[in-house]
Amino acid sequence: MTTAPPQTSTTTASVAAARTRSLALEDEIARDPSRFRVLTGERPTGALHVGHYFGTLTNRARLQQAGVELLMVIADYQVITDRDEPGDLRSTVREILLDYQAAGIDPERTTVFTHSAVPALNQLVLPFLSLMSVAELERNPTVKEEVRASGGRAMSGLMLTYPVHQAADILFCRANLVPVGQDQLPHLEATRTVARRFNHRFSPACPYFPEPDALLAPSPTILGSDGAKMSKSRGNSLLVSATEDETAAFVRRCVTDAERHVTYEPDRRPGVANLLTLASLCTGAPPEAVADEVGAQGAGVLKALVTEALVEHLRPVRARRAERVGSGSDPLEVLERGNARANEIAAATLDDVRELMGTSYR
Amino acid sequence: MTTAPPQTSTTTASVAAARTRSLALEDEIARDPSRFRVLTGERPTGALHVGHYFGTLTNRARLQQAGVELLMVIADYQVITDRDEPGDLRSTVREILLDYQAAGIDPERTTVFTHSAVPALNQLVLPFLSLMSVAELERNPTVKEEVRASGGRAMSGLMLTYPVHQAADILFCRANLVPVGQDQLPHLEATRTVARRFNHRFSPACPYFPEPDALLAPSPTILGSDGAKMSKSRGNSLLVSATEDETAAFVRRCVTDAERHVTYEPDRRPGVANLLTLASLCTGAPPEAVADEVGAQGAGVLKALVTEALVEHLRPVRARRAERVGSGSDPLEVLERGNARANEIAAATLDDVRELMGTSYR
Repeated sequence: MTTAPPQTSTTTASVAAARTRSLALEDEIARDPSRFRVLTGERPTGALHVGHYFGTLTNRARLQQAGVELLMVIADYQVITDRDEPGDLRSTVREILLDYQAAGIDPERTTVFTHSAVPALNQLVLPFLSLMSVAELERNPTVKEEVRASGGRAMSGLMLTYPVHQAADILFCRANLVPVGQDQLPHLEATRTVARRFNHRFSPACPYFPEPDALLAPSPTILGSDGAKMSKSRGNSLLVSATEDETAAFVRRCVTDAERHVTYEPDRRPGVANLLTLASLCTGAPPEAVADEVGAQGAGVLKALVTEALVEHLRPVRARRAERVGSGSDPLEVLERGNARANEIAAATLDDVRELMGTSYR
Repeated sequence: MTTAPPQTSTTTASVAAARTRSLALEDEIARDPSRFRVLTGERPTGALHVGHYFGTLTNRARLQQAGVELLMVIADYQVITDRDEPGDLRSTVREILLDYQAAGIDPERTTVFTHSAVPALNQLVLPFLSLMSVAELERNPTVKEEVRASGGRAMSGLMLTYPVHQAADILFCRANLVPVGQDQLPHLEATRTVARRFNHRFSPACPYFPEPDALLAPSPTILGSDGAKMSKSRGNSLLVSATEDETAAFVRRCVTDAERHVTYEPDRRPGVANLLTLASLCTGAPPEAVADEVGAQGAGVLKALVTEALVEHLRPVRARRAERVGSGSDPLEVLERGNARANEIAAATLDDVRELMGTSYR
């Protein structure tokens, strides 16, 4: 899930354990992808950029390609957890749907849906809220991060209960796998807790909800042109939908440093390392090899190489996007299938939950 | 609503204002009942007793009779706000449905539904949560009462967000009138706040949700046989479904006092006053008049009179209940119509809400 700001409180030990577990899970995926149902998604706060593309989209497309069942939630209600105005959601969701397809997500195979279109999913929030104490919600890393970030702004009830909505988003389809970056590992804990407590209280004989596993995605953090984390609102991003000229302009703007000789030293030289990472992601060559190739030719040559690599790598992605735009049909149409399928799954789960809780009166 | 414990923090001034407003509303109901939609209901924690009967059921039947559209929610999820186990909800709901019909609620005219059966209603909880701050929820009188009552038990997320669920229960059908006892006046404030803020943020040109009015019900507090508030769990109650023998046994158990001469002095002689109130409610005579009638004949004669009055008054009520039980069909069947109607109303409201919030993608 990339629906919340990242955390930094993960311990080295838990990351190492998650990494080991993820390797084992990748093996299992390769052996029998049908065992897995993956839930992933994001808040529709803007069109997607290459940070999203290399960070999560390519990984999702890879999982889809591997034959894992994928559900992707566009978490539209989560947009108003930390802001009053959701903005033009129709237009944002349209862009995101195009970006998904550009990145190889096939809406015929992958269930792409909007959170607000699935009432039975949202109903799960109520019983799940009974399984978490207010103190636990206040201690949740995502919620604590929000308290810090809000700068005195009153926290809404929607923000405090965010970990429970996330549990509903994941558990409504009984997903057993959630791709996360290592800074997002704690996000899944609340979901696992809700699943465990629900099973203990309402389904002790046979656990109903799986406790979903984190699948550590090989997600490099891509910096924006100013050296900060890439973010559309910061104006430092390169959108998936950008033209070749915009791509070149983005790379030109990217900060480097005063040293002529190009080396891959992420900690000491983050700007240069970011360009090398982008080249590496596009070409498949290790960033160190790219650095050796450029060497004393300096940042100008590196930037030309990165521009070329991005343009080449994203060409088929952008071609798919252009084709989709040119098809004349509204990108929102893919939600019809996705929302219908998500509603079907959610209704079945809610029926089971009613049965287990004794709130079925038929 | 009687879905939460009563409050005692209402000021005299606000009660007086609510009383004046309620008298004006009663006039309007008499003139044009079609202007009103009433939402009321309760938590299914047990079969209903004469405290419910005289406190709320007769008032609801009166409103139905007056031609007001009535919706009654059986708030099954609210059972787990303050306890882990919901108990045998099917059986409890069955009893409550029989009690409703015994009291004259006609499920063909009044929409009787269970909270858990209406996903679109429950979805409203999410956008509504964005309109209330955590600090406001913590200050809510119902929630504060719960904190006091819990005795150190961790408050669940479901309890903290209770005022928002209540807002969803009331606003999903755009009810404009909610019958309350005077100790429950503050309960409606959160709902009015949610309606006001939603309108301000998402529907400024034309308010979408009404700010529902409180209709102060003429609800006397009926004491149990031990002199405490009547409550099934306390074992001090007389159920609507009780037999004549059980009724007599209940009255025999009722605490009185050592004074022989019967007088109506609620503060000084609550037990005797409670018996007089019951007689008054059954016969229509003022409690003082009943006291005068009994006078020096003492509590024994008063009890005989009260038993007789209860048996007579409840005879048609219990006859309707027995008839319904004898009909052979499952009382739960009435939920089919009620839940279908509630879902229809909720789906229409949710469609409007999606349109107003910009989360409609068709």
